Amino acid sequence: MAVAAIYAGSFDPITQGHLDIITRALSLFEKVYVSVIENIEKEPLFSIQERIHMIKDSVQDDRVIVEGFQGLLVDYAREKNVFTIIRGLRAVSDFEYEFQMSLTNRALEPKIDTVFLMTDQKYSYLSSSIVRQLGKLGANIDAFVPSNVKQKLQEIYCG
Amino acid sequence: MAVAAIYAGSFDPITQGHLDIITRALSLFEKVYVSVIENIEKEPLFSIQERIHMIKDSVQDDRVIVEGFQGLLVDYAREKNVFTIIRGLRAVSDFEYEFQMSLTNRALEPKIDTVFLMTDQKYSYLSSSIVRQLGKLGANIDAFVPSNVKQKLQEIYCG
Amino acid sequence: MAVAAIYAGSFDPITQGHLDIITRALSLFEKVYVSVIENIEKEPLFSIQERIHMIKDSVQDDRVIVEGFQGLLVDYAREKNVFTIIRGLRAVSDFEYEFQMSLTNRALEPKIDTVFLMTDQKYSYLSSSIVRQLGKLGANIDAFVPSNVKQKLQEIYCG
Amino acid sequence: MAVAAIYAGSFDPITQGHLDIITRALSLFEKVYVSVIENIEKEPLFSIQERIHMIKDSVQDDRVIVEGFQGLLVDYAREKNVFTIIRGLRAVSDFEYEFQMSLTNRALEPKIDTVFLMTDQKYSYLSSSIVRQLGKLGANIDAFVPSNVKQKLQEIYCG
Amino acid sequence: MAVAAIYAGSFDPITQGHLDIITRALSLFEKVYVSVIENIEKEPLFSIQERIHMIKDSVQDDRVIVEGFQGLLVDYAREKNVFTIIRGLRAVSDFEYEFQMSLTNRALEPKIDTVFLMTDQKYSYLSSSIVRQLGKLGANIDAFVPSNVKQKLQEIYCG
Amino acid sequence: MAVAAIYAGSFDPITQGHLDIITRALSLFEKVYVSVIENIEKEPLFSIQERIHMIKDSVQDDRVIVEGFQGLLVDYAREKNVFTIIRGLRAVSDFEYEFQMSLTNRALEPKIDTVFLMTDQKYSYLSSSIVRQLGKLGANIDAFVPSNVKQKLQEIYCG
Repeated sequence: MAVAAIYAGSFDPITQGHLDIITRALSLFEKVYVSVIENIEKEPLFSIQERIHMIKDSVQDDRVIVEGFQGLLVDYAREKNVFTIIRGLRAVSDFEYEFQMSLTNRALEPKIDTVFLMTDQKYSYLSSSIVRQLGKLGANIDAFVPSNVKQKLQEIYCG
Repeated sequence: MAVAAIYAGSFDPITQGHLDIITRALSLFEKVYVSVIENIEKEPLFSIQERIHMIKDSVQDDRVIVEGFQGLLVDYAREKNVFTIIRGLRAVSDFEYEFQMSLTNRALEPKIDTVFLMTDQKYSYLSSSIVRQLGKLGANIDAFVPSNVKQKLQEIYCG
Repeated sequence: MAVAAIYAGSFDPITQGHLDIITRALSLFEKVYVSVIENIEKEPLFSIQERIHMIKDSVQDDRVIVEGFQGLLVDYAREKNVFTIIRGLRAVSDFEYEFQMSLTNRALEPKIDTVFLMTDQKYSYLSSSIVRQLGKLGANIDAFVPSNVKQKLQEIYCG
Repeated sequence: MAVAAIYAGSFDPITQGHLDIITRALSLFEKVYVSVIENIEKEPLFSIQERIHMIKDSVQDDRVIVEGFQGLLVDYAREKNVFTIIRGLRAVSDFEYEFQMSLTNRALEPKIDTVFLMTDQKYSYLSSSIVRQLGKLGANIDAFVPSNVKQKLQEIYCG
Repeated sequence: MAVAAIYAGSFDPITQGHLDIITRALSLFEKVYVSVIENIEKEPLFSIQERIHMIKDSVQDDRVIVEGFQGLLVDYAREKNVFTIIRGLRAVSDFEYEFQMSLTNRALEPKIDTVFLMTDQKYSYLSSSIVRQLGKLGANIDAFVPSNVKQKLQEIYCG
Repeated sequence: MAVAAIYAGSFDPITQGHLDIITRALSLFEKVYVSVIENIEKEPLFSIQERIHMIKDSVQDDRVIVEGFQGLLVDYAREKNVFTIIRGLRAVSDFEYEFQMSLTNRALEPKIDTVFLMTDQKYSYLSSSIVRQLGKLGANIDAFVPSNVKQKLQEIYCG
């Protein structure tokens, strides 16, 4: 029986939608790894250290381990001996991508299972990319990110 | 932390796809309720007793409780004090329906969370309705259902 | 310039989601026809008179005309000389069906245009069919339908 | 190399969309079987003889063989020794259903391959079920079906 | 009652599909703002002045106001006191993106409503990005853009 | 009747999924052009020569012609006098894009027809982009690409 799960992503930056999924995951698993992908394709807005730091500030539950990782998710999973991957689903998700990722991971490591959890409806439009865009354009993003993330975004965009 | 989950459905009849989801659920939860909906809209092919019996025959794991239920899934969940609902996802799923069900259940009982698990790719086209159609037309369904279900279908369709 | 629009449907029964669309439509059009389809395929739960009556009770705005209609929507539109059709969209909508209807209507009468409005997110899982199912199973549907509809459903299902 | 293909369906009744797919299929294959499913779930509007007759009247190309069939499509394909199945795709198709059918057929008979052809855009909203509905409501369906089918529909609905 | 609406986009360049939506919008609203986003992510092919100029040349209806805007769409909408946003829908639209945008705008400004209009079927494959690609490869794009846009594209790609 | 077809793509690099489609195409057509797009938007991982070379190494059937092409697919098709375009469909395909491409090609050249073939289920998650990512991260990609491609990827990523 799984007691731990991995919630991997870029978290550039973490949003209320991500935090909602972490809370739901904590009601299912004893331990949740929030695993920040270091080598993402595009230049991230926040460095890996900043992204990890913002998550740690926002979560504060000792059942949550926040850390960066490099390379293949399946290799990281094997190293941790944790084979349950958590993904957040929204009504507006890109299912094709989700299925492709999930099937690829299973092809690389048959022990891996992906568990999809549904975000609260009020976050169904949220994504880090939307938050970055809105932050850049000076929108009020109080409802979308925790206050520490909001502050960080303001430092970047409003000097 | 959730130790039990409910996998509800008509199971008319149970397929290898359902059994695959039950196996995956057992790696996540200590106890899995396979809860057979009694009052389905259309006349079922198999009676509630037959459907329960076929599942019990196919599963045989004492961490699985097979039983029928009537009325609202959320009321059944409250009665059992189990608020995690399992749903199987296939690449060819009807997502709109899945989201609608999941959001409705959450609206009726905020404690409820739906956990979507991905079926093995080799069952991604399978459904009870396909199995019933194929059985009726005399197809070889060895790969789709356990042998006890196959026999039951043959009794119905081939006398 | 369009001053009136037609919002057609079975409304069996009207839900808070429908009422939300009517309110949005009233901010775009001077007059909104809520046009109840009489000859629907399946036996309706409520008679055409009951459905019209429940809508009239729930709306009460003299810019809204509630009435039944038979036959083709395009013929009804021509008769009223109103060529704007309103449809509610939800994140969980059946787009294929919506497009098919919209394109068919345009093929039958090129003057017709369909205007899609987005329901409030909190009604995105709602449909008359879900309401009927929940009502039948005795669920608390206070948040889904106006009180007069709730009472009508209780009369039917709880005697 | 395939020289023949099977285009199976209920054709209740045949539409301009079906005829468009048959024409496209004839530019790919020497022989096209238009195979009318006899045992469809719901009561058809037209009998199997009427459906076959209407297709024969509309097609008239001696490379097209119109006939009814019963039972599994894969058994019919084996009998004909033709393993290429043609399906028409529209932008508003039900892909989930198409994939499920296609994967099921391949599971039952690995030799079978489904070839999807795209209907002309101007028929992208057309289906037999839409035609039946429109015919029943007295719509002008000149653009949707060949004239012999139109006449047959008028005989049924307008006496 | 809304008398004006905003149709915002990059229009890089404007296509016959956009012009079709503007015509449809003019049958619903007294005034239509065609609002060209200045700060788009990627380097545009045409400058903001060129894009505005091409639209003005193509439209020529004094109920249409063509102008650029910077920053958040919701701020622009508040400034104009126009809270109806028009979006064109095609059968091949990216609904997930459309919903995400629409829900985000509503979250930022509850007064905002998005009105989706369906493009004419014959433009259902058209997008500015397709037009740019085709122009670059020297395709005949007479049916896709107005003549002034065609000329501009030829100046860029064919010198 | 078509005797030849064109299977165009970037093939950067070719995968087992592509090879599966080529095999299926060879059971339908006498001759299959595997036509490698030279001028793709993004910088390819492999040069046009390398991509052509890898395909030739993997296929080795004299009914397959592998070559590069520049410019519009419809111009290339006219030059070859081959108007059947093959596309591979997976359950996780981006249908919107596929339809847009297919309809655009038909608008540019009405003689062109797109034939969609379904990949074997076991390759339904595969794409060149996934293969490049996995190769870069050092995953075992034996099941995804032919051995010559695997070697080429290792040369690039592992020196």
